Amino acid sequence: MNADIHPALVGSLSASNPSVRLINFSPGPASLPKAVEREIAASFNKPGLTSLALSHRSPEFQKILDHTIASVRRVMDIPDDYAVLFTHGGGHGQFAAVPLNLCRNRSDLATYVVNGTWTQRARDEAQRYCTVQTIDGRDSAGGYTTFPELSEAHIDANSKYLYMCSNETVNGIENHRLPKLPESRRHIPLVIDASSDFTTKPIDWHGDRVGVLFACASKNIGHPGATLTVIHRDFLGPDKASPLCPGVFNYTTNVEAGNLWNTPATFNIEVIGYLMDWLEREGGVAENERRCIAKSRLIYDVIDNSGGFYGTPVPNKALRSRMNVPFNIKGGDEALTDEFLITSWDEGIIGLRTLTPFGVGDYLRASLYNAVTEEDAAFLADFMQRFASRN
Amino acid sequence: MNADIHPALVGSLSASNPSVRLINFSPGPASLPKAVEREIAASFNKPGLTSLALSHRSPEFQKILDHTIASVRRVMDIPDDYAVLFTHGGGHGQFAAVPLNLCRNRSDLATYVVNGTWTQRARDEAQRYCTVQTIDGRDSAGGYTTFPELSEAHIDANSKYLYMCSNETVNGIENHRLPKLPESRRHIPLVIDASSDFTTKPIDWHGDRVGVLFACASKNIGHPGATLTVIHRDFLGPDKASPLCPGVFNYTTNVEAGNLWNTPATFNIEVIGYLMDWLEREGGVAENERRCIAKSRLIYDVIDNSGGFYGTPVPNKALRSRMNVPFNIKGGDEALTDEFLITSWDEGIIGLRTLTPFGVGDYLRASLYNAVTEEDAAFLADFMQRFASRN
Repeated sequence: MNADIHPALVGSLSASNPSVRLINFSPGPASLPKAVEREIAASFNKPGLTSLALSHRSPEFQKILDHTIASVRRVMDIPDDYAVLFTHGGGHGQFAAVPLNLCRNRSDLATYVVNGTWTQRARDEAQRYCTVQTIDGRDSAGGYTTFPELSEAHIDANSKYLYMCSNETVNGIENHRLPKLPESRRHIPLVIDASSDFTTKPIDWHGDRVGVLFACASKNIGHPGATLTVIHRDFLGPDKASPLCPGVFNYTTNVEAGNLWNTPATFNIEVIGYLMDWLEREGGVAENERRCIAKSRLIYDVIDNSGGFYGTPVPNKALRSRMNVPFNIKGGDEALTDEFLITSWDEGIIGLRTLTPFGVGDYLRASLYNAVTEEDAAFLADFMQRFASRN
Repeated sequence: MNADIHPALVGSLSASNPSVRLINFSPGPASLPKAVEREIAASFNKPGLTSLALSHRSPEFQKILDHTIASVRRVMDIPDDYAVLFTHGGGHGQFAAVPLNLCRNRSDLATYVVNGTWTQRARDEAQRYCTVQTIDGRDSAGGYTTFPELSEAHIDANSKYLYMCSNETVNGIENHRLPKLPESRRHIPLVIDASSDFTTKPIDWHGDRVGVLFACASKNIGHPGATLTVIHRDFLGPDKASPLCPGVFNYTTNVEAGNLWNTPATFNIEVIGYLMDWLEREGGVAENERRCIAKSRLIYDVIDNSGGFYGTPVPNKALRSRMNVPFNIKGGDEALTDEFLITSWDEGIIGLRTLTPFGVGDYLRASLYNAVTEEDAAFLADFMQRFASRN
């Protein structure tokens, strides 16, 4: 790190003053709720083996795995005709796994809604394994600020699936409910990248015809290393996947082996279990959605009432992300943005800028995942208001 | 769990008596050295964010990543012309990744030495992506108890690589040094699955012409979720991998992105760093090899001096694994084996039998990874001797 550059400007997550309480608005990996952190710390102090040492084939780990899956099923109301699997390789792993499991042949069609960084990357990866048709979500200026219309004309009736990301983290675009396909295309299952919004709103699994949904752990439900993948059993069977599908990505192989075809990320799965238990104690997904609406409204209200001091890129309020609020300062004023980062960092507000290779322009991003409380969001909103008044 | 079956017989890792010190001989996931466990517990109590919450793009995580890689390089004396990468998907992920990175075309040849469970699985997976020639390591009875001769006649000169596992965990067969290929085949790089013996002996990277070596973390160097992969830079470049290689498995893509092409298993990498630091403090790989020889000798000596009470399947002592000692009792006597498991479990000896789907016949296995001390191995040896005297 260049010693001349203030740590806040290169995404430092350390406290400038150790007595300051840190509030982590990072887009992920993100913090875990304090209660979950305490449970993890306690798990290292209990008698017997630590969780890191449990064999995946021990009855002790089987209990953790069963508990975590049952807890996820209850929290997200996942019907029995879906399998729940913890997969390797993060969301990017699923970018390959989805076409490799759902398209047996390279000539099979798949439709991708591309309206941001993650759907772009998912589409690029899918093109190795199937024939992709893209629904281009760019706006008239060529940017990603919206979700395109899903009209019959854009969706081939033979598509094996329609792929979308329910929350485009980088671009701040969210579908608060899954879109309905046109009547004549309702037979096509949805594949949902829910990496950054899973557990923050209900999913109507059957009504929305969800085929596959995946969520990497490191935003709302855990830490990096395990990805939660929910698969309708229609997509399981001996001849479903492409022969090119690596075993470690093969849904059927892994479901049949009870998630133990190879060693899963045991501790990471245990942490997801703690998170799900916490969500249940906190009132489940309905209460969590209320909180997410409230947290994001606090920030968007400051932006919208700032008389143009703050800007946010998504014009349609119905599509604004509750998870990631991108905002710039006086149209991207560099000096003011740096001052904002440094002064907020001094108050313990961290993670607003990460050194991502995905251009986010002048935008900072406040990510409001499960560990960020309403009080935390109010603290940031208050800081933003004070900063605007000063400048 | 069937209440009628004693926990020891189904691989329970819990203490029967909480005051008993547990010694975990599990084949993996395995325990971490006590000193490393203490460092992890401490990392959850330090001020600031817990390690689980660090963004992979923060300067704080970059420091952890750089430190871990530098430490692995020092411990294993890895030359600069090798890249070190933490990959997703465990050893099984690398079973696919290796051919997908080293064979651009399906017609490319690769030679697999198959002498146990893991090389069998690796070979089966490779057959999806390249043309495999197998050197069959079965003995005259059809079992895996040896390492086959690597003669010129068995290795096609056009092989892209020769694949082997330096320690076959299930079968208890280890190459204490990597084999030399015949002179006319020295141009063929070795690919080594060192999942269960990495850090327990030196590797002559250039002398042995290692092309790729990988080690899943959960045996000697950490916990499940990250795999250490060492790649000679000859295998990196824009047109090296197959176009079918998933991005998450592509060595070039991931090395070029500084291991941040997608979110790596941040905490798992930190733990590997603690483990490497511990190894350095404990005297490095030379001292560790001395310990591994000593630990395994304690067990093999009891077996060999038991007058046939204990048996072990690998006749050639030069190939007996220092990591995993398979042994049976009176030729596999079921009642005596159960009694051994129950009475040893009462003394805190756990992990000798795991419910693996890979048939290990009547054999129990004592795995002697880095967390198992010489005292621990002596404790097991002493128990074995007492048990034999009683019966």
